[in-house]
Amino acid sequence: MSAIDVTAPIGVFDSGLGGLTVARAIADALPNEHLVYLGDTARVPYGTRSAHTVIRYARSCAAKLIERRVKLLVVACNTVSAVAIDMLRVELDIPVLGVIEPGARAGVAASGTGRLGVIATAGTVASGAYVRAVAAENSRVEVVAQAAPLLVPLVEEGWTTGEVPRLAARRYLTPMVEADIKALVLGCTHYPLLASMITTELEELAGRSIPVVDSARATADELSAILEERALGAPERPAELSLLVTDLPERFADSASRFLGHSLEGLSVEAVDL
Amino acid sequence: MSAIDVTAPIGVFDSGLGGLTVARAIADALPNEHLVYLGDTARVPYGTRSAHTVIRYARSCAAKLIERRVKLLVVACNTVSAVAIDMLRVELDIPVLGVIEPGARAGVAASGTGRLGVIATAGTVASGAYVRAVAAENSRVEVVAQAAPLLVPLVEEGWTTGEVPRLAARRYLTPMVEADIKALVLGCTHYPLLASMITTELEELAGRSIPVVDSARATADELSAILEERALGAPERPAELSLLVTDLPERFADSASRFLGHSLEGLSVEAVDL
Repeated sequence: MSAIDVTAPIGVFDSGLGGLTVARAIADALPNEHLVYLGDTARVPYGTRSAHTVIRYARSCAAKLIERRVKLLVVACNTVSAVAIDMLRVELDIPVLGVIEPGARAGVAASGTGRLGVIATAGTVASGAYVRAVAAENSRVEVVAQAAPLLVPLVEEGWTTGEVPRLAARRYLTPMVEADIKALVLGCTHYPLLASMITTELEELAGRSIPVVDSARATADELSAILEERALGAPERPAELSLLVTDLPERFADSASRFLGHSLEGLSVEAVDL
Repeated sequence: MSAIDVTAPIGVFDSGLGGLTVARAIADALPNEHLVYLGDTARVPYGTRSAHTVIRYARSCAAKLIERRVKLLVVACNTVSAVAIDMLRVELDIPVLGVIEPGARAGVAASGTGRLGVIATAGTVASGAYVRAVAAENSRVEVVAQAAPLLVPLVEEGWTTGEVPRLAARRYLTPMVEADIKALVLGCTHYPLLASMITTELEELAGRSIPVVDSARATADELSAILEERALGAPERPAELSLLVTDLPERFADSASRFLGHSLEGLSVEAVDL
């Protein structure tokens, strides 16, 4: 049905290493798929750049992965998903999947038609992308979006347990519980590392269980459905993961393995120019 | 003694708005001096850029302030002070003052010849700039430098009091107290907003008072000395502060007034291109 080579890898890119949580969710859901992950570590973060610049960066990341003959592109970056996904879909011949639409859809499903909470970076919240994606899915679902700027540096510092992240999370979650949200979307690639803590705190604050939607996992689920629908799945085989980075930041291996959930041993890591 | 116009303003620049703590310290110390502050808010943060890029950005910031005919340049950015201060001194005809050397000198004076603690961003610590500056002052003083990456986002979020910043600060300060530091330099423009909390926690952890050196204030003190020495001080007059920014970020007025310590009312704010 398509000239796409099903044995080709899936390309995944992000402004940095946080998108490895998405690569991890994909590897868990699709154990036959080769993945090529590109982290633009030299230009991270994208969240503070203009839309014009983000589009330019997104184009160069996509081009690098197209060079590697990927069969499908996953944009594991919320900023690019908010700003440049339509452009990439127009310009590329392969399917393109972002992280915002899957997260929003899974959130709507989890919230019934009740209020849906979203936590994300200030840039993602300001972009209004979740509000638009939720409205496209179900215009009756009201979104309560909350910027949670401290959660990214907490994860990057490796402080994912203990009092500091717990108190920070409670501070962000309290107004959402007061707004009576029925489900919460984790709208940032870094947040899966805080998912269990957030789930616990949310339940404790609300006095009831509130479903927490991990947009990395939601993206992996939607990717599985697309591969099946379009008969693009790889045959059974041991899957490979390659990492491309534009800069090797200090403590690269630490950060990468934290997001990925396992050590980098045996993985190919390559520095590339964009 | 010099062709410099003493009535001209002093130029101050930083990658963002944090350097306004330095402008504030200067305004407190030198109430007659006009200040032109340039915050490169479109390209913040510099800490993750290559030295090559930081030098290019520093040149463009300096050129913009030279256009405004400043009589002296204060580099209120630790990253630029670490990487590009020598280049600026060679290229510019006016005196150039960074924030690292004054902080290091005041730290050495406060520590006796005991160990000197420095907290700063990961980039500043990795640059080794404080170690070099302290060694240049007194080679017997040993520096214990600790990256404290969470303190900047805490200040930017406005969380400068309460349990979260207190616990975060204790976590960074505990190893320094165990290393028996005799004084602590706050090596980041954002930290003055946490100075009193840090002073209290440090004393509580150590069981004795440890002097805390605010490098913004140390820079203002050194600037006063330079102006007096070179007879560059302005005559008595009501001082003016102008703000130039390369982008007007969300919550600009909030952030700027927090770093500055008062509202922006009556100040000129101008968006400029670099």
